[in-house]
Amino acid sequence: MIKVGIVGGTGYTGVELLRLLVMHPEVSLNVITSRSEVKRPVSELFPSLRGLLDLEFSEPDLSVLTLCDLVFFATPNGTAMKMASELHNTGVRIIDLAADFRLKDVHEWEQWYGQKHEAPELLMDAVYGLPEINREIIRNSQIIANPGCYPTATTLGFLPLIEKGWLDCQRLIVDAKSGVSGAGRGAAVSSLMSEVSENFHAYAVSGHRHLPEIRQTLETVSGLPVGLTFVPHLVPMVRGIQATLYAELKNKDLDLKSIHQAFKDRYVDEPFVDILDLGDHPQTKSVKGSNICRIAIHKPQNRDTVVVLSVIDNLVKGAAGQAVQNMNLMFGFDESAGLDIAPLSP
Amino acid sequence: MIKVGIVGGTGYTGVELLRLLVMHPEVSLNVITSRSEVKRPVSELFPSLRGLLDLEFSEPDLSVLTLCDLVFFATPNGTAMKMASELHNTGVRIIDLAADFRLKDVHEWEQWYGQKHEAPELLMDAVYGLPEINREIIRNSQIIANPGCYPTATTLGFLPLIEKGWLDCQRLIVDAKSGVSGAGRGAAVSSLMSEVSENFHAYAVSGHRHLPEIRQTLETVSGLPVGLTFVPHLVPMVRGIQATLYAELKNKDLDLKSIHQAFKDRYVDEPFVDILDLGDHPQTKSVKGSNICRIAIHKPQNRDTVVVLSVIDNLVKGAAGQAVQNMNLMFGFDESAGLDIAPLSP
Amino acid sequence: MIKVGIVGGTGYTGVELLRLLVMHPEVSLNVITSRSEVKRPVSELFPSLRGLLDLEFSEPDLSVLTLCDLVFFATPNGTAMKMASELHNTGVRIIDLAADFRLKDVHEWEQWYGQKHEAPELLMDAVYGLPEINREIIRNSQIIANPGCYPTATTLGFLPLIEKGWLDCQRLIVDAKSGVSGAGRGAAVSSLMSEVSENFHAYAVSGHRHLPEIRQTLETVSGLPVGLTFVPHLVPMVRGIQATLYAELKNKDLDLKSIHQAFKDRYVDEPFVDILDLGDHPQTKSVKGSNICRIAIHKPQNRDTVVVLSVIDNLVKGAAGQAVQNMNLMFGFDESAGLDIAPLSP
Amino acid sequence: MIKVGIVGGTGYTGVELLRLLVMHPEVSLNVITSRSEVKRPVSELFPSLRGLLDLEFSEPDLSVLTLCDLVFFATPNGTAMKMASELHNTGVRIIDLAADFRLKDVHEWEQWYGQKHEAPELLMDAVYGLPEINREIIRNSQIIANPGCYPTATTLGFLPLIEKGWLDCQRLIVDAKSGVSGAGRGAAVSSLMSEVSENFHAYAVSGHRHLPEIRQTLETVSGLPVGLTFVPHLVPMVRGIQATLYAELKNKDLDLKSIHQAFKDRYVDEPFVDILDLGDHPQTKSVKGSNICRIAIHKPQNRDTVVVLSVIDNLVKGAAGQAVQNMNLMFGFDESAGLDIAPLSP
Repeated sequence: MIKVGIVGGTGYTGVELLRLLVMHPEVSLNVITSRSEVKRPVSELFPSLRGLLDLEFSEPDLSVLTLCDLVFFATPNGTAMKMASELHNTGVRIIDLAADFRLKDVHEWEQWYGQKHEAPELLMDAVYGLPEINREIIRNSQIIANPGCYPTATTLGFLPLIEKGWLDCQRLIVDAKSGVSGAGRGAAVSSLMSEVSENFHAYAVSGHRHLPEIRQTLETVSGLPVGLTFVPHLVPMVRGIQATLYAELKNKDLDLKSIHQAFKDRYVDEPFVDILDLGDHPQTKSVKGSNICRIAIHKPQNRDTVVVLSVIDNLVKGAAGQAVQNMNLMFGFDESAGLDIAPLSP
Repeated sequence: MIKVGIVGGTGYTGVELLRLLVMHPEVSLNVITSRSEVKRPVSELFPSLRGLLDLEFSEPDLSVLTLCDLVFFATPNGTAMKMASELHNTGVRIIDLAADFRLKDVHEWEQWYGQKHEAPELLMDAVYGLPEINREIIRNSQIIANPGCYPTATTLGFLPLIEKGWLDCQRLIVDAKSGVSGAGRGAAVSSLMSEVSENFHAYAVSGHRHLPEIRQTLETVSGLPVGLTFVPHLVPMVRGIQATLYAELKNKDLDLKSIHQAFKDRYVDEPFVDILDLGDHPQTKSVKGSNICRIAIHKPQNRDTVVVLSVIDNLVKGAAGQAVQNMNLMFGFDESAGLDIAPLSP
Repeated sequence: MIKVGIVGGTGYTGVELLRLLVMHPEVSLNVITSRSEVKRPVSELFPSLRGLLDLEFSEPDLSVLTLCDLVFFATPNGTAMKMASELHNTGVRIIDLAADFRLKDVHEWEQWYGQKHEAPELLMDAVYGLPEINREIIRNSQIIANPGCYPTATTLGFLPLIEKGWLDCQRLIVDAKSGVSGAGRGAAVSSLMSEVSENFHAYAVSGHRHLPEIRQTLETVSGLPVGLTFVPHLVPMVRGIQATLYAELKNKDLDLKSIHQAFKDRYVDEPFVDILDLGDHPQTKSVKGSNICRIAIHKPQNRDTVVVLSVIDNLVKGAAGQAVQNMNLMFGFDESAGLDIAPLSP
Repeated sequence: MIKVGIVGGTGYTGVELLRLLVMHPEVSLNVITSRSEVKRPVSELFPSLRGLLDLEFSEPDLSVLTLCDLVFFATPNGTAMKMASELHNTGVRIIDLAADFRLKDVHEWEQWYGQKHEAPELLMDAVYGLPEINREIIRNSQIIANPGCYPTATTLGFLPLIEKGWLDCQRLIVDAKSGVSGAGRGAAVSSLMSEVSENFHAYAVSGHRHLPEIRQTLETVSGLPVGLTFVPHLVPMVRGIQATLYAELKNKDLDLKSIHQAFKDRYVDEPFVDILDLGDHPQTKSVKGSNICRIAIHKPQNRDTVVVLSVIDNLVKGAAGQAVQNMNLMFGFDESAGLDIAPLSP
């Protein structure tokens, strides 16, 4: 059993992390902080946790947090970087579910996030927590930058193709769709039921913060510059992301079976990546509540465009579940501990 | 480990039972039958189960089913009664998730279900599987009539009040609301997304089959005739039931605190009944995917009408979860085995 | 053509009023005010109105409003009462879509709305704008208190029964259900898609502001004290209200056909009340976007409890549409002008 | 007033056509046929039409239909072609809302629709009813092939770019998303609320029937072969389509302002195409219930990929509304007659 703390945790990522941690066999949840909800029982804010968790929110307090083996940050962007150094110095390991440590280039980070980075010295120490790429270094890392939701679905969909060098990396298109829980639990008109339900639209077409994150990972994998068009859309549902990926094959004659086999080979040992059969289409509902990413590959009309369909639960593999997967790796637990959850369907 | 079979299992109750059983530590799932899907992998019909279950649907075959310790019927009404006698004679225990064994009076059953009962001799052996009432006899029963979804939410909401003799039992009102998964996975126009979404309506006001089931239980508990108005409604959501119960107190001066305390006392040892604090209102989402029933009690304007709000997940406590709870009791497992699931929220 | 102004109008009631008024043959929309959106084009806030309306929001200004023949208040409770006297004195007619003039008893109003009433002298002048009761006095009134959404559906459902003197008025039960647009366009966590979707719950069971409004109307109609239990619920949809009404007949032998005929007779000339056939159940979707109230009457198991099902679109007959109906009466237009809209289905 | 008949009309396209026609000032609805619903009042099947329409479904009967000036086919694919010749010979004008006359190449039609075409001689007479391209010949045509929903949104989005010759037409990508009403009112498991709600997925990636229809139109406009990847997705909502279009500019330096101006110029006189301001994103809800197509244009990161966002209500501009627009043109009515409907929002 390790001692775990959560900073933040009043949002949807927070409650999802709590759902997973209260069931986790190796975790003792010691502290959860929230400035706005101090002394309020967690299960009052989140009635789904009644009977499962007997903790109150507390003021963030370094002297308490440093007693933990691991601290999750389920905070808005810009919070973890303020506390990370001190925690880091005391040996506490950190998983940041926000974006503070995702980009290696501090200037790019400051440009996209519109604020000064307060712990640039940690950016190089931080490991991008996508186990399918960085499993071994995650095990020994002190700070994990937990990937964004869109980047997780997108990267896992492109990865085998890019590792093989099969794509024209200057022409990648990501048409991504997310449920509204990705917009968080903040009280915003644009997230109201009356606005979101029976509605569909794109947003941030001119530039979304997950674009540089995706590009950084794909460039690291390919070793080449990547040209990427990324268009996110809001789906009238709560959970789930689908990334529909379009890319051109350098070799138009490469047949779909070979591509499909490459995906199966690449992910054969991955506990949380599932490659569908040829002709299938994944459904976001088929992964609801679970840490699984399901992927299908198509080559319509046998043209030179490959289409990859990649679905995850944005709150699990796209956030809290991946964080727990990273924790499992960092502390030598079974990688699936606490994550062997059957998706909820219908 | 017990050997379990499922007859039927292509509906929502079936896939929910599978979700729970594949995670259950004491169950080996031996056979699942479906005449319409013979030889089809279960995980092809239900992609949420990919990687969790390596079974195909098979033709119903008594010689195979009799090798099981327990057979669940997740079939339409009228199926279990055709196979129950033979199974029963070989000593296989049975849990019927449909309605074949719920009513003790065969004439009433035949009237409400519009068909002849083919195993009336089993009606008296069958135990109504509501553990909060019948826990001890469930342990030793051979046939369990798993309660209906509305009756579960309703009965648990009325139970303490009726046991105390506090209500005028001639004037009970149940205004019940269910998500559409309760209507099953059958291809019906009335269950289409385009019909159900952004819509709300009552149905079967003149008479619903759950009415005699509720009345039978309440009359058994009270020892008195019960007069009940039961109005079910369809809610534009997939999972969840709320029963809003209205009843008149014989003693108008009985205060809310005493009533609330009676509920807490009655359910203090129940693992799956949660009494909310005074003033609270339960949300169906707070029990999604779990076997929990949450109940709040109100006495508006301190008049003589008590209002009970009772919520469950219709597919779990209202169907498959309660069936697993009954199985746990029948085979001496921990009553919560396989059911210690945190609700999925949001 | 009359000159119309709208005070407020950035909420859902406001945009619905705009939708109806831009199509109305007798209305010229002169001014719409909003302190928070001054100078912003209305069609920028509400893109559904692009091309239909070329107005900007302006600062509320009495000198501009007094040039109007009619001013609608689509403001939060407590706003209209601050401006009504001055407008009233200049002869401008007023329809308040909020609650400022709905209760005749100023003490009751202050108790339920938690603030001091600033124009108590107008309470007696104000006419409760339910045309099915007050059509004639509406024609000549200067101030209309436009009814609440729940009270509209509820009152129309009880009205024929109470006028006939058939009910035990001490035992009325209203189990009401509303879509989330009734909660307004304010940025509240409780109205987020992630909270409301796939969820159902009651709220304000201990006391909702529409209770005294319903009671006042029913007592006026019956001339007797009314005992009412009113339980509102939130439905995971945007538009629509169903009120399910339960009442006990004084004469248990009164047959359903006679009751049904009484409803048909009562509403035979009403352009916006539709009595369904015996055995039917109204659907909220069948009135979406229209000013219609559809009602069905049941007497389950021929017991002494009558059940009335009444549905409206909360934003139309429950708010903006009824306001336009009142305007039509006040200015001698065809009562259906601008309201002959076919419901949108599916 | 013209006499209008509808063949079919028990589906969602049918009820939407009825909604529009009962409000149309120039139309007398004489007959509506349905083999399965003969003698049933239309308003019983579609309660939203109660009080608006006093017709029963009748058996299809050529002698009755030939008395009409215009017959709409709101039937499944393959029906109109069986009756069109006879109607055509009597001088009745025809608008087919299905696909029978959409493709000019009979072999391509037979390949995609999997049946023999029974009226190939009419294919060349039939006019593709997209007024923005074919307004003048629509006026004088006898048979209109009403465009598909995806093709309408897609074609209007690509049109100005292709007419200008600005695109590399070998690399067009259409990522399209539709509400479930597009799947029709048929009782299919895949359209159930429990399947569609809280779910998102692509379908028919290997080939959808709207692909050749889009390609035919774009090739006609461009005079060049078109290479198109078309991926449709199902959105958990009832109404609405968004097509997100990706294309490469031949001249990378073409700036966004010029592109935007080209769209505004192209559609300046179109009553039902609305070009949004630079930086905007259209919402499907902003056109709900209306015949409007709203379009926004982006050029993310100023790369050579242009992104067009195009939204319509699939049942209106994508089906029944466009059919009425075509009727208006054919009979010399105001093009907007019966279509000046404000979208319903929220």
